[in-house]
Amino acid sequence: MNIIKVNSVQREEMIDITREVEYVVGESTVKEGVCVLFTQHTTCGLTINENADPHVKSDMLGFLRGLIPQFYEGFRHSEQNSDAHIKSSLVGSSVTVPFQNGKLFLGRWQAIYLCEFDGARERSVLLKII
Amino acid sequence: MNIIKVNSVQREEMIDITREVEYVVGESTVKEGVCVLFTQHTTCGLTINENADPHVKSDMLGFLRGLIPQFYEGFRHSEQNSDAHIKSSLVGSSVTVPFQNGKLFLGRWQAIYLCEFDGARERSVLLKII
Amino acid sequence: MNIIKVNSVQREEMIDITREVEYVVGESTVKEGVCVLFTQHTTCGLTINENADPHVKSDMLGFLRGLIPQFYEGFRHSEQNSDAHIKSSLVGSSVTVPFQNGKLFLGRWQAIYLCEFDGARERSVLLKII
Repeated sequence: MNIIKVNSVQREEMIDITREVEYVVGESTVKEGVCVLFTQHTTCGLTINENADPHVKSDMLGFLRGLIPQFYEGFRHSEQNSDAHIKSSLVGSSVTVPFQNGKLFLGRWQAIYLCEFDGARERSVLLKII
Repeated sequence: MNIIKVNSVQREEMIDITREVEYVVGESTVKEGVCVLFTQHTTCGLTINENADPHVKSDMLGFLRGLIPQFYEGFRHSEQNSDAHIKSSLVGSSVTVPFQNGKLFLGRWQAIYLCEFDGARERSVLLKII
Repeated sequence: MNIIKVNSVQREEMIDITREVEYVVGESTVKEGVCVLFTQHTTCGLTINENADPHVKSDMLGFLRGLIPQFYEGFRHSEQNSDAHIKSSLVGSSVTVPFQNGKLFLGRWQAIYLCEFDGARERSVLLKII
């Protein structure tokens, strides 16, 4: 079991962790399998999306911010981050990526992101190779 | 392969199944791995979210109810539960949680929930340790 | 590692790939485990949902089209498919399904779908049995 530490610097942010994951998979003695990533938090998520145009990230975060606003009048949770809890469940707390011979089977445009929805914080991502 | 039975009592509900999952993982002879949970239904989901303030659950269910209404005029599916089918695909039908020595690697605030979107019903959650 | 090729013919479409997955699982020598499906793209997703009434598919795609419009004024990504990137992250890029003795443990109403959000294209779905 490996742990990748991620430090966000804004409330909402998509942080590319592909390189850190590739490093662990590259060191593994398992020839072929899947890499399971799991975040131990309830106000961030993990996803796979485009690695090229940064507007994809800002479009996604900006659209979700409008769709699920932080200060929605119906929210009762006193920490004022119910929006982040909801986004966390919609994006999901884990991703699973196949690999072979030390290389992730990502498509040409895919990167692995931690989606921070209630930063800035230090986040832990567990990595288990199966 | 284990099956956890869950009985919902309302149309929409988040039911904490962490204890049932921990029990199965605690009995397993596998020392380290991942626990895959899978629901065999199309109008509920599985997610991981906060285990403390119950307002997180009611905020999430309430917000999603407003965002994806049951009686949206565009829906054609005659069972009047298209909202539940959509929520099921957004939340997802499985979660994967790493474990070691009989203990789930959940964060301090994380619980595993069955998200009922079209209850009350009996639901089956498969549990496979890898 | 197996690859399933899927050809979409519309911009938005849910394509049932259950039969192709069942075929690979049926040929496997692994008696019991999970089947991990992973799409190598950033504008489609994988989900599990109802296999019976086709209105469930059209209700889902139609509702998401209204919720996350292609030509939202705030989008900056120049390829005019930010909506598809967002839907891809919400639906997710992988599904995991338990199986035993060559048979997927799908519920009676469940099918596995590739959700095309920016077709028509050829898509690759990796399948790894664990």
